[in-house]
Amino acid sequence: MVDKWVYDFVDLDSARRAVDSDWDKVRGLLGGKGANLADMASLGVPVPPGFTITTEACTNYLANSGVLSGEIWSQTLTALEAMETTTGKKFGDDEEPLLVAVRSGAKFSMPGMMDTVLNVGINDEVAAAMVSKTGDARFVFDSYRRFVQMFGTVVLGLDSEPFERILMLARSRANVENDAELSQAALREVLASFKLHVLRESGSELPSDPLVQLELTVRAVFDSWNSKRAFEYRNAASIPHDLGTAVNVVAMVFGNTGANSGTGVAMSRDATTGERRLEGDFLINAQGEDVVAGNRPTKPIADLSAEMPEPAVQLAEIAKQLELHYRDMQDMEFTVEDGKLWLLQTRVGKRTAQAAVRIAVDLVEEGLISKEEAVQRVSADQVDFFLHPQFSSEALMERSAVTSGLNVSPGAAVGVVAFDPDLAERWSDEGRNVVLVRHETKPDDVHGMLAAMGILTSSGGRTSHAALVARQFGKPAVTGAVDIEIDMSARKLTVSGVEVDEGDWISIDGNTGEVYLGRVPTVEPDLDNEWLKTLLGWADEFRRLEVRANADDEAEAKRARNHGATGIGLCRTEHMFFAPERLALVQQMIVAPSVSEQREAIDALLPLQREDFAGLFRAMDGLPVIIRLLDPPLHEFLPSKFELERNAMDLKLRLRSSGTVDEIDKTVADLNDVNDLLRRVETLEESNPMLGLRGVRLGIRMPDLPRMQTRAIIEAAIEVKQQGGDPRPEIMLPLVSHVNELVTQRSVVTEVADEIIAASQLDLRYHVGTMIEVPRAALTAAEIAEHADFLSFGTNDLTQTTYGISRDDAEQAFLRNYVKDGILPANPFASVDESGVGQLVQMAVERGRLANETLETGVCGEHGGDPASIELFHRLDLDYVSCSAYRVPVARLAAAHAALASRT
Amino acid sequence: MVDKWVYDFVDLDSARRAVDSDWDKVRGLLGGKGANLADMASLGVPVPPGFTITTEACTNYLANSGVLSGEIWSQTLTALEAMETTTGKKFGDDEEPLLVAVRSGAKFSMPGMMDTVLNVGINDEVAAAMVSKTGDARFVFDSYRRFVQMFGTVVLGLDSEPFERILMLARSRANVENDAELSQAALREVLASFKLHVLRESGSELPSDPLVQLELTVRAVFDSWNSKRAFEYRNAASIPHDLGTAVNVVAMVFGNTGANSGTGVAMSRDATTGERRLEGDFLINAQGEDVVAGNRPTKPIADLSAEMPEPAVQLAEIAKQLELHYRDMQDMEFTVEDGKLWLLQTRVGKRTAQAAVRIAVDLVEEGLISKEEAVQRVSADQVDFFLHPQFSSEALMERSAVTSGLNVSPGAAVGVVAFDPDLAERWSDEGRNVVLVRHETKPDDVHGMLAAMGILTSSGGRTSHAALVARQFGKPAVTGAVDIEIDMSARKLTVSGVEVDEGDWISIDGNTGEVYLGRVPTVEPDLDNEWLKTLLGWADEFRRLEVRANADDEAEAKRARNHGATGIGLCRTEHMFFAPERLALVQQMIVAPSVSEQREAIDALLPLQREDFAGLFRAMDGLPVIIRLLDPPLHEFLPSKFELERNAMDLKLRLRSSGTVDEIDKTVADLNDVNDLLRRVETLEESNPMLGLRGVRLGIRMPDLPRMQTRAIIEAAIEVKQQGGDPRPEIMLPLVSHVNELVTQRSVVTEVADEIIAASQLDLRYHVGTMIEVPRAALTAAEIAEHADFLSFGTNDLTQTTYGISRDDAEQAFLRNYVKDGILPANPFASVDESGVGQLVQMAVERGRLANETLETGVCGEHGGDPASIELFHRLDLDYVSCSAYRVPVARLAAAHAALASRT
Repeated sequence: MVDKWVYDFVDLDSARRAVDSDWDKVRGLLGGKGANLADMASLGVPVPPGFTITTEACTNYLANSGVLSGEIWSQTLTALEAMETTTGKKFGDDEEPLLVAVRSGAKFSMPGMMDTVLNVGINDEVAAAMVSKTGDARFVFDSYRRFVQMFGTVVLGLDSEPFERILMLARSRANVENDAELSQAALREVLASFKLHVLRESGSELPSDPLVQLELTVRAVFDSWNSKRAFEYRNAASIPHDLGTAVNVVAMVFGNTGANSGTGVAMSRDATTGERRLEGDFLINAQGEDVVAGNRPTKPIADLSAEMPEPAVQLAEIAKQLELHYRDMQDMEFTVEDGKLWLLQTRVGKRTAQAAVRIAVDLVEEGLISKEEAVQRVSADQVDFFLHPQFSSEALMERSAVTSGLNVSPGAAVGVVAFDPDLAERWSDEGRNVVLVRHETKPDDVHGMLAAMGILTSSGGRTSHAALVARQFGKPAVTGAVDIEIDMSARKLTVSGVEVDEGDWISIDGNTGEVYLGRVPTVEPDLDNEWLKTLLGWADEFRRLEVRANADDEAEAKRARNHGATGIGLCRTEHMFFAPERLALVQQMIVAPSVSEQREAIDALLPLQREDFAGLFRAMDGLPVIIRLLDPPLHEFLPSKFELERNAMDLKLRLRSSGTVDEIDKTVADLNDVNDLLRRVETLEESNPMLGLRGVRLGIRMPDLPRMQTRAIIEAAIEVKQQGGDPRPEIMLPLVSHVNELVTQRSVVTEVADEIIAASQLDLRYHVGTMIEVPRAALTAAEIAEHADFLSFGTNDLTQTTYGISRDDAEQAFLRNYVKDGILPANPFASVDESGVGQLVQMAVERGRLANETLETGVCGEHGGDPASIELFHRLDLDYVSCSAYRVPVARLAAAHAALASRT
Repeated sequence: MVDKWVYDFVDLDSARRAVDSDWDKVRGLLGGKGANLADMASLGVPVPPGFTITTEACTNYLANSGVLSGEIWSQTLTALEAMETTTGKKFGDDEEPLLVAVRSGAKFSMPGMMDTVLNVGINDEVAAAMVSKTGDARFVFDSYRRFVQMFGTVVLGLDSEPFERILMLARSRANVENDAELSQAALREVLASFKLHVLRESGSELPSDPLVQLELTVRAVFDSWNSKRAFEYRNAASIPHDLGTAVNVVAMVFGNTGANSGTGVAMSRDATTGERRLEGDFLINAQGEDVVAGNRPTKPIADLSAEMPEPAVQLAEIAKQLELHYRDMQDMEFTVEDGKLWLLQTRVGKRTAQAAVRIAVDLVEEGLISKEEAVQRVSADQVDFFLHPQFSSEALMERSAVTSGLNVSPGAAVGVVAFDPDLAERWSDEGRNVVLVRHETKPDDVHGMLAAMGILTSSGGRTSHAALVARQFGKPAVTGAVDIEIDMSARKLTVSGVEVDEGDWISIDGNTGEVYLGRVPTVEPDLDNEWLKTLLGWADEFRRLEVRANADDEAEAKRARNHGATGIGLCRTEHMFFAPERLALVQQMIVAPSVSEQREAIDALLPLQREDFAGLFRAMDGLPVIIRLLDPPLHEFLPSKFELERNAMDLKLRLRSSGTVDEIDKTVADLNDVNDLLRRVETLEESNPMLGLRGVRLGIRMPDLPRMQTRAIIEAAIEVKQQGGDPRPEIMLPLVSHVNELVTQRSVVTEVADEIIAASQLDLRYHVGTMIEVPRAALTAAEIAEHADFLSFGTNDLTQTTYGISRDDAEQAFLRNYVKDGILPANPFASVDESGVGQLVQMAVERGRLANETLETGVCGEHGGDPASIELFHRLDLDYVSCSAYRVPVARLAAAHAALASRT
């Protein structure tokens, strides 16, 4: 039985005792914010007096259908009395009144999602007492109106818009830009309007009893745990729903008492670049929320030393102290009240991918963390971000930005403008790329932000909601592009005199903050970040899975090797066939009326293929190169029946108007050609080509094709070897469903290969393996493995056949909705399905190894670059994954994560 | 070590001792013919003296690369000496010469496939001695020329044609019809010509040394075990290749000594109908092969008593004795030499399916065999034969036969005429139905016979090669249609003045022997055979698997119930949708521009579907009726894109020539309609519809459809129940790959169903289950079974996805060749693949039952009617199979076979 629901900040030890000194459990009990406040207090960092009502109190409250137990409330009151003793003030007192801030704080930081109410405990009497005590009526009424506004919206659930409108009216009447410039009288009027609005909307006066205010606020914080937006955030961030939130009740310190006060947010390192310098924003004469809300233009933290020298030095020292203590970059909230610095919060700071990598590496070099920790601190998604598209430099040379804002989250994004998150989500669901454009973003917008390619706001700073969320989810973002005027009623924006309608294309550069009209071409970036290289080097030390690349030409192979691939796991030879200059030969091969003409076309392809393969062997010298023999059905190389029918129709119509005999002859000849091709296309037509004549089936039907490909591979390898290289060819037979298919084709391959090698008198070794792409191959892997040097799981196809779902059709037709409606936990083409496909992979690996102990196993295909899938492949003890060159770094890190996770 | 290679017919006991008195092993050692000859000898049946060289001697000979060991030969000579003693004749003697027949005899009867040489031991001196002893030079030279002919073709491997040509020439010179009518002089000339031909062709004289003749003949018999045709026959009949054949050396008895001699073949029961009466053919003054070869018109056995009263009575008695002894119908070869009856062979007689069933049942009633044996003696294929197509009686009323022959193997066959087996096979491979038309068939023709739908010969009797093979393989056949003249050079036949070219259609009726020109419509027959009903009744006593039917309407359901189905295992509701009068509604549903219009169309389908289901419930009163909700992709109900494009083109062309404004308006309106439909078709188009939006996926996307279908099912059941019936509805959700699909759709179904049932105030029970059609469903059956009352394996789809092979495309494109080339052991769509698909079924059944102990499991789809698959499903412990109504009897028997087989 729980008997302690409330812990004072200075009572960290008893909280530790309650959870066996486990810091993670302390955070679970007090929430991240509460735990760190108590921790800071114990470190001697200046923290206002306060206490935490535990997450257990929250879950108790929620489990009791919103009844706050007497015991919890009585412990709260006791803690409040202790605070009164410490501060020498009294809650609700009309001489030395105590105001408190009530702030939520769950175990995991959920910025902006939970609610905060400042200045709790204020009422007309208290306000009068504060005025008479401070002599600063402006400050008091500013605080009072803030309380009404926050209590009204957060606790009473009123809309925030009318409050903003009242303030705007007041500003325009006073002809000032900022709330901070409003006079005492103006604020008093604002307060009156606020109160009237609350009375009208909620039907009753705002509670003036401070204890009632406190109780209602605490309950509101608890209730907000189950709000829709909190629920959605937790879903998106994979945070369990049963943790609950703690409530922190903190004695108010005021950043709005005048020019010697202020409030700000500071990061111990640059959250964008990772550079080791204090970074952040602050506002003079302001209260907490002002900085994050982006209502007023903030000042960079670098200016703090000029304006408040002593607190600035102190803040820098505290930042260092906290980094040392927490062994990570810190994100701190502070307030200066009449020249005295108070820390209101510290937490591990969100950061860009670049910053995450640099900070992790720097911390190792500073001796704060181990290499393993550094590797584990960077997510695979963050590495992926290094590979996000960037605008092509040529494209940028040709055009100039229409405006710019803050470069708060790197990467380039191109999409159509959507002005609200629902539309952004809908358009994205329809497969359109969207850039979400807002004045500023709010927690309610997150679904649209997730759906968008990028985010552009006309207001808000580096620590604004938009910036934080964009960085967290790796979305390119530009904030504070103040020149942009958004007209929501006309659903258009105006910038530099240009009108942009919703649905028009726009491009934003999160690296520079530039905004461009239209679609700017993007290029894939290369990895030249030293910190990333260091980190990935460490990852390589820890991972067990080998990472290879899918590459079809020399350039790609070189890039893959630069990215750290140790071989090619899949070369799709059909990509070579699709090259325009070769397509004619391929078509000739397919439509050849005789075997000899067919062979002629195949022979003409030989030298071309040989050069392709020689390039791969050179690029991957000394490393394995797995080449898959032709896989797709032949009709893919021919024009569509539909297209040909149209051509034929056109020719028939032309016949009607043909003039000369020569013209008619020509047209008839063309028509015959088209009809010939049409007949061939019809012969090859399949109702389900995915399950048709392709892969090894094609090779068995047309053995000259695998013979030619084998010849090209082996001759290329001989050539490279003769030039002093070390080629490691591996030939892969696709789509085997019965061992006999493999046996038959393997003998075709080895016959050709062995003959060429024997003639060359070189000692060239090669492997022959097969793909496991259909369930039967996995189920009978024991038989198959006896005739294969390696098994490569084609998990795309395997997913298709295991589910009976065609990726081409299904993703758009129903898979997206399946994931959305929770019918499928995830898109099985994105992350491999453990319970179905994973079961087959496991079966095949186990049975295959029993039958052939030197068997090599791996995965090629897109799952090979997906971190969650890589984790599974590590557990299933595969030898390698293979993925696109651009995913290789991600896979290297994910493989290290998997290995480190399995150590524990 | 084997030390005895030769057994005398009268030494059966020592053969028995050599193999521990196991009769099956005796047959293995002596071959079926040798064992039965020895057995008959021990029963006192008149058998000529003789001995058997064992199958072990054959395998020894073959293993020694065709070297006949000295020990084998010496034992042969010893046995020959014993025969000389018994007969009082001497092999090669020029006074009392002994001639022998050398006949192969493997363990399993292989009619016509192995070779026989009669009259071994004859030469000029021996012939002279025989003439002087018998005074019948005609008989002697007839025997001698037969020896030369048989030795020449069988031992020396000469072509048989020239021999036949010499005989034909002789007949035409003598102006006679039959060889039996040739004079002594004519036969002497024939003999001389034969000898000359042998000398010319083989380059040496025919060996005159009787022992050389014997040795060469024995070796030729052994060698023939490995002949191509024997090999192919064993493959077709699943006989192991390592058994070897025995050689029987039998003292010659002569049916060609004159009018008081003859030879014949007799069955102890009618091999066509199973009636209990002696049946067969004989020839006066002829030797063995004459009857089977069909060279001369034979006489029915019924005539024997008139021509040879005493042997006739004796034969009938022996037939009864042998039936009693062997407990089965016997096929006997006999010869009458100068009025004395000799039995040359007895074996279990081949029979038609009808005869097999009747004989099995009769034998039980006669107390010879048990019901279990009766059930096991009839093959599933034989039951299937009862269900072979027959010509429709209306069609027959309208036309008359062009000719007729012997009704030697029942069933109707329709196909194009092919005059040689190779062409028949090639055309059949191309998917054409073929009737093989031959003068007579030979063992070399078997591949063409197997490929043909039916066989028609212009010569040959009821026991001819054509008849035997056709019956054995269940091919409809008409033999001896003597009016048919085949012109092989012109590749046409002439009958009743009509010319029929190769490739023209022809229809034959194996039940009546009638032959029709063109394509006669066939109808599926009904089962009204009393013996079959009795047999299937016994089968029902032994089987454990329940047999249900796939039926989509009331008539089919009634038929299925008549055939013994105990429920409907699969009703495909889409078949109701395809009905022409409903297709318009279905299309309206699919192309409806709004949800309300769509619902309107769906509602209009409701009463139609309800009536369908009520019919099923009435037909299957008291039995389960599993109804599968709509399965195929929607675009199947729409015209093809191609077709619509053509329509649009036509309309566009018509616009060019449209005259009046009204016409133009009309055409434009039509064009818009077509374009609307085209757009819809394009939206629904899928590149792999088999893996697309169908089954439960469709139901999830369009929930009004499963709601309507559920309503129709449950309302129909309520209606039938209110009328006093006992409906047992079971609703089946197709194509589930993830348990959540089932959960979601099940709740849609139960919500509708429970509401209707509650409103009816009736106690109607229903089940909801799912199909296992994709590997993932099988792999995760534990989860699925928790939400399913039954699992029904859709093994067609499961085979497609397990192999990654589309049945529609692949069968023609490569599957046929795969089976032909031995890459696949069998077509997995015909017999379920045990090692792949079977593994998944086993997994699913085991895991499903663990999760839900009341789970019912079954198979619907074509494998449910395939005997080999049923055997597997029995072993995998499924509860039921479901197949087409016409396969139900087959499945009942196959299920009994499986159960009886697993008893041992």
